Amino acid sequence: MSFTYKRIINYYETDRMGVVHHSNYIRFLEEARCRWMESVNLPMEAVEEAGYTIPTLELNIKYKYHVTSGDVISITPKITDFNGVRMTVGYDVIDEKSKNVVIEAWTKHCFTDNSLRPVNIKKKDEHIYNAFNNLFEEYKKEKGE
Amino acid sequence: MSFTYKRIINYYETDRMGVVHHSNYIRFLEEARCRWMESVNLPMEAVEEAGYTIPTLELNIKYKYHVTSGDVISITPKITDFNGVRMTVGYDVIDEKSKNVVIEAWTKHCFTDNSLRPVNIKKKDEHIYNAFNNLFEEYKKEKGE
Amino acid sequence: MSFTYKRIINYYETDRMGVVHHSNYIRFLEEARCRWMESVNLPMEAVEEAGYTIPTLELNIKYKYHVTSGDVISITPKITDFNGVRMTVGYDVIDEKSKNVVIEAWTKHCFTDNSLRPVNIKKKDEHIYNAFNNLFEEYKKEKGE
Amino acid sequence: MSFTYKRIINYYETDRMGVVHHSNYIRFLEEARCRWMESVNLPMEAVEEAGYTIPTLELNIKYKYHVTSGDVISITPKITDFNGVRMTVGYDVIDEKSKNVVIEAWTKHCFTDNSLRPVNIKKKDEHIYNAFNNLFEEYKKEKGE
Repeated sequence: MSFTYKRIINYYETDRMGVVHHSNYIRFLEEARCRWMESVNLPMEAVEEAGYTIPTLELNIKYKYHVTSGDVISITPKITDFNGVRMTVGYDVIDEKSKNVVIEAWTKHCFTDNSLRPVNIKKKDEHIYNAFNNLFEEYKKEKGE
Repeated sequence: MSFTYKRIINYYETDRMGVVHHSNYIRFLEEARCRWMESVNLPMEAVEEAGYTIPTLELNIKYKYHVTSGDVISITPKITDFNGVRMTVGYDVIDEKSKNVVIEAWTKHCFTDNSLRPVNIKKKDEHIYNAFNNLFEEYKKEKGE
Repeated sequence: MSFTYKRIINYYETDRMGVVHHSNYIRFLEEARCRWMESVNLPMEAVEEAGYTIPTLELNIKYKYHVTSGDVISITPKITDFNGVRMTVGYDVIDEKSKNVVIEAWTKHCFTDNSLRPVNIKKKDEHIYNAFNNLFEEYKKEKGE
Repeated sequence: MSFTYKRIINYYETDRMGVVHHSNYIRFLEEARCRWMESVNLPMEAVEEAGYTIPTLELNIKYKYHVTSGDVISITPKITDFNGVRMTVGYDVIDEKSKNVVIEAWTKHCFTDNSLRPVNIKKKDEHIYNAFNNLFEEYKKEKGE
């Protein structure tokens, strides 16, 4: 049931070390979250039109394997914690050719209004809450919790 | 009298060719315009607070010489055309070590309101108009026009 | 017969004007060229392994229509000039929803060895030359030349 | 004795949320490390010419306060752990106007040869080792260890 996002590494995402510059992985993780949200009919742009946004509060990345332009990575995001106020997303990031783990990563987020003031999305918008809660329930079921 | 902006090339601005990725120069030109506007007490953020913005309509870059991380370039912007509705900015971009021309570039801009609708800034905001017109007059004087 | 590359705009490619930052289009054009080369079995990485690279010599972009995150653009590249030493690529860039032209753009390139010294690819590597020349012949046929 | 790097936020570093896109802070931290190394006469480019590079192994960022274009941040990096094989760098990142903490961040690094194979820099290059060890000793002295 899980969603996987595949994308090819672009030339402009490499640096003179010959591999992807480490800052770009944060952008790839955001892409994966956005494509995932679109796949459950809640594009980020709809969240913003409803008056909310989902900033990043914290992130952690362990760099394990280098990829470069032309390589294809797959990113499988999972909501590993969620309570309507805060959300943690974990990611499996794999090099499609070697099947090596490229990075280990998680990001923490909150929900805010358009002025970037934190809100409890459970109280504010049931539709948005349910979309994320369903993904969290899926994660728990897969883990056998 | 002319304003020159110096900046060092960052590691993350190179690509696996070992030199600055060509897309980054557009960002360097924007930096030069913004620092220049600050130097005449009209920061871009003040323009936006006044209700206007200055999108780019067209740009042209000729790439002449490669620089890489640690190199320092100087950018000297000049308003080469301005009538309150449209503005053209030219740039001298020099590698500080070799004194080679790095790129030859110009950008064209218009003035819009916050909804990105074009405005005649001469009619809308005298302060903003004068700031740019003074820089255009300086250019004409230097050229001996 | 022509190749078209579709891609969704990412959140991180917008700026505080609410639309795509104008520097990113140069990256989208590079993506289109790279995907195109892969479609004719000549990925950029194979060109580099053969000892060559294809830097950008000049670019020109006219910005016509704003798109933002979640929008999908299509880019159709065409080789409009090629002689083994220099190459010009033109691009049709369309917003998929409104069918508006997003930008009008062309880029000029040369062929170099790994030390960024210009080469005549017609004399150096027939395989690479033919790949690009076929695309140029396609363009001329479509134009009825 | 500590080194502080100040830099203004660029327009192209904001996103449509109106503030710095969170991916850019990783780039600002790299800038701070590079300017710091230059200040102790060991520019990153000299490390690479000596045959080594310093990839990022892990990073952690807590986002605390939003800044936007025109704001100035100061970054004070410190080597909080170092043994010739691995290095941890911590950063104080402050908004100059409000004096708020913008992010809390640390990065872990190793030393590799040009093929990205890990090396013990203590055994390989005394000059590079000493430069980093001096900064680590400074940190320990300041902390009163």
